[in-house]
Amino acid sequence: MPTPTEPARHSLIAGEPVPGTAGTVWAHDPVRDTPTGPEFTLLDDDQVAAAAQAADEAFGPYRRTTPQARAAFLETAADRIEAAGGEITATAARETGLAPARLQGELGRTVNQLRLFARLCRTGDHHGVRIEPALPDRAPLPRPDLRRRTLPLGPVAVFGASNFPLAFSVAGGDTASALAAGCPVVVKAHNAHPATGLLVARELSAAAADHGLPAGVFSLVYGPGTAVGRSLVCDPRIKAVGFTGSRGGGTALMAAAAAREVPIPVYAEMSSVNPVFVLPSAASGDRGALAEGFTASLNGSAGQLCTAPGLLFVPDGADGDDLVARIGDTLSAADGQTMLTPSIRSARAEGEDRLAATAGVSRAALGRTGAGPNAPAPAVYSTDAATFAATPGLADEVFGAVCLIVRYRSADRLPPLAHALEGQLTATLWLDADAHAEDAAVADLLEALELRAGRILVNGWPTGVDVGDAMVHGGPFPATSDGRSTSVGAAAIERFLRPVVYQNLPEPLRPAPVRDDNPWNVTRRIDGTTTPAERGDTA
Amino acid sequence: MPTPTEPARHSLIAGEPVPGTAGTVWAHDPVRDTPTGPEFTLLDDDQVAAAAQAADEAFGPYRRTTPQARAAFLETAADRIEAAGGEITATAARETGLAPARLQGELGRTVNQLRLFARLCRTGDHHGVRIEPALPDRAPLPRPDLRRRTLPLGPVAVFGASNFPLAFSVAGGDTASALAAGCPVVVKAHNAHPATGLLVARELSAAAADHGLPAGVFSLVYGPGTAVGRSLVCDPRIKAVGFTGSRGGGTALMAAAAAREVPIPVYAEMSSVNPVFVLPSAASGDRGALAEGFTASLNGSAGQLCTAPGLLFVPDGADGDDLVARIGDTLSAADGQTMLTPSIRSARAEGEDRLAATAGVSRAALGRTGAGPNAPAPAVYSTDAATFAATPGLADEVFGAVCLIVRYRSADRLPPLAHALEGQLTATLWLDADAHAEDAAVADLLEALELRAGRILVNGWPTGVDVGDAMVHGGPFPATSDGRSTSVGAAAIERFLRPVVYQNLPEPLRPAPVRDDNPWNVTRRIDGTTTPAERGDTA
Repeated sequence: MPTPTEPARHSLIAGEPVPGTAGTVWAHDPVRDTPTGPEFTLLDDDQVAAAAQAADEAFGPYRRTTPQARAAFLETAADRIEAAGGEITATAARETGLAPARLQGELGRTVNQLRLFARLCRTGDHHGVRIEPALPDRAPLPRPDLRRRTLPLGPVAVFGASNFPLAFSVAGGDTASALAAGCPVVVKAHNAHPATGLLVARELSAAAADHGLPAGVFSLVYGPGTAVGRSLVCDPRIKAVGFTGSRGGGTALMAAAAAREVPIPVYAEMSSVNPVFVLPSAASGDRGALAEGFTASLNGSAGQLCTAPGLLFVPDGADGDDLVARIGDTLSAADGQTMLTPSIRSARAEGEDRLAATAGVSRAALGRTGAGPNAPAPAVYSTDAATFAATPGLADEVFGAVCLIVRYRSADRLPPLAHALEGQLTATLWLDADAHAEDAAVADLLEALELRAGRILVNGWPTGVDVGDAMVHGGPFPATSDGRSTSVGAAAIERFLRPVVYQNLPEPLRPAPVRDDNPWNVTRRIDGTTTPAERGDTA
Repeated sequence: MPTPTEPARHSLIAGEPVPGTAGTVWAHDPVRDTPTGPEFTLLDDDQVAAAAQAADEAFGPYRRTTPQARAAFLETAADRIEAAGGEITATAARETGLAPARLQGELGRTVNQLRLFARLCRTGDHHGVRIEPALPDRAPLPRPDLRRRTLPLGPVAVFGASNFPLAFSVAGGDTASALAAGCPVVVKAHNAHPATGLLVARELSAAAADHGLPAGVFSLVYGPGTAVGRSLVCDPRIKAVGFTGSRGGGTALMAAAAAREVPIPVYAEMSSVNPVFVLPSAASGDRGALAEGFTASLNGSAGQLCTAPGLLFVPDGADGDDLVARIGDTLSAADGQTMLTPSIRSARAEGEDRLAATAGVSRAALGRTGAGPNAPAPAVYSTDAATFAATPGLADEVFGAVCLIVRYRSADRLPPLAHALEGQLTATLWLDADAHAEDAAVADLLEALELRAGRILVNGWPTGVDVGDAMVHGGPFPATSDGRSTSVGAAAIERFLRPVVYQNLPEPLRPAPVRDDNPWNVTRRIDGTTTPAERGDTA
């Protein structure tokens, strides 16, 4: 009990604190390696059902809100979280060991995401309106009046991520996109940063109250281990799941959701090693800049970013040798960053030990151990392409600042190596586009990688994800559970929507997005042609 | 062996006949209740893998085809199937017992679907292009150049439907949309109409050959029972599944796909009773027309349409009584149609027996038994709303011309009844839009139904699905496995696509849909604004 004078804190269900009966938890300060208060009570399975119930009750009124009302709610949430940003980031720093600058950036991203989805609500593109007016004289059969729009799926369970205490937790991307779609949200707090989560949750609940929305539109629940999460996913009132975390955690939720009487979609972002291919033409270029960029991308946030480069393909020969040597130089000057929790740190150690013990793999570079017990030195290992291809598990993710360099003989060896990879969030090519000697290999490599990754980069580093209209943060399994979707950017809203079409519905009964007068001024597709919002009518 | 002089027929894998080693099957002529030749050999599990392998090998070259080439292939397939239409529909009539006029209509729909997707290939909307050009001066961080497009998932397994031997079988909607997306297709033939399937498959294979496409782009496999289908769904080279059939069959495939090492999406259209709500205002109107429309919708194709009305809500009182009486009149003049197979006919009998034996349910109307052994009389049963609400299973689908009428006291009783329904393909309201007494109940009913169905109709009958841009033929489980999609209409292509984004890809490396010069002239969304194809560039 690190702070016995502070009262215990509780889950926030529909705006009300609910003391849990399934034990308590403290956050752990990974820098000082001590528990850090206050104490949080944990819900049992029956208690968590109240949050699903509240979300279910809120769904009807919430989905009927106008785009303006929903946008205003999201904007107020953003304003409130921004205003409370100092306390939020200080708390997050204590609970996660992440650097203040990183957390301030993440807070900015979090509020920007809420504002992006508020704008999306107003433009209304996500209504996916398609209208085909009646053609009574069409032969052989008349066409009825058909008007399609999307509807929210219903209450969504969101699992806070360990590595993004703000941007992919309580009011993060999954929550913002689900709320924008019209879905109430129940967040399962990550127990690594419970106090951060509660601060954010209070602002989100307050924003709902500010706008007179039903309180059940948002709840935050704390639970022991994985039990409460599983019970949430199995609750018949929950209609979809957003998750960011480990492959084991994500696949367990996928299995639970698939085994329900009524299966539901799970959007789990899980495991990715984000391969980076340094082509010979790039290895003959500015190797100093390559080494610096790589080290920064690998070691930032202790390598605990879902897009950190875990595999680096480097050509054999003098250029490649020099690049590896330069990586050794830059890494040796890099300090280990504090990892999120002791258990994440020990999982990293196990993964690194496994790599180090593999025949044909040797350590190529080592950074400095950071301050405190949870800041291991960033480490880079090396192997040859034949060993890599022949050894199962070498492409498995080690969460943290650990990378495996794979040395290859020539560019034409890369496509088969890429073909053997699992699904990835990102894949990166470094090349000199004006050097055409490797063009054929690059074309083959691109074709292999685009089938295996959600984002393909050239001459950049995969960490850092732009939150906009075109972004795809997803990828085939096991990068995510559903490679047809993105968890970052505007298209993330589509995960929580489904289409419905109205046939010959009289105008007075039509929902706003498909009415003739287009009162919400949403973009619509009429007879196959997209009609901008400003002149969006069918009259 | 009904036609021993005819040689046995075989699966068509990548254009070549492959004799199966797992037994043989004959189609059954349900009108004459006899087997009808020729004999078809069935593949074992190992043999079916050859089709998946051929599809996998075809995927690379096929997905690289231009929109024009892919559209031309689909159009040739349509032309060839149309030209062979006489033999195809005659064979289908013999194998299914469906009426020639129905089959000619279905053939027309089949070729129209292929042509719809050919047009879609040419317009290129399905590429889902979103471009955000670089903003090097953006603060706090520059924006990279981001260009998103969609890619086909890979080889798709399609299961032919018993009840649509043409429009949802070998070259049906699932096949057409998957091929348009760029996915090779392996069709598991429905053993109820093997000869029909082979005739269509030969035209599809010939169309691929006409255009020099890899033969593995299409295969048709025959197998015993469910074994070959399951082995296809579990094949690692198969990346998605399209299925139309029973709830048991669909959920088995969903479970098999979810249990794979790499889970894949299953688009299964399964079970729907398509509730029709006759509001009091409609019951006071033209009851004769209502009864006639209902009987035609129920009894068409022996009730073997996925959108046939299986539940009819009728008000208590004199109007309702008269409507039920008129249904009795029209139905008594209706002849039973031949069902697809003896086993479908006996499953219908079991379902009807179960209904008839339920306490509180009585028969309200009965048609005439049709010619031959497999043409049971269409039948309508009746119960009251309280019995309906209290008795599990009364809303379960009985595949065939069997409907349950539910009598209700007043319009405000309908929304709770609707809330208790499972997911549906369609839900229908009959009402007088100018009679406002029931407006509140109608609004509540609409809100309940749009959450439970893919298509909402007013004053129409749910059978007959328009194939166009706005159609949604889908709905929440168990209507389909994935209510976020449609299996009919242009949007069906989205089931077989996933997005990828390119970050800072140099122009020479960009795929055609995201190149500056937009060589395929596809519609694109640039900086959030949809840009018509004609001026679709970012320069």
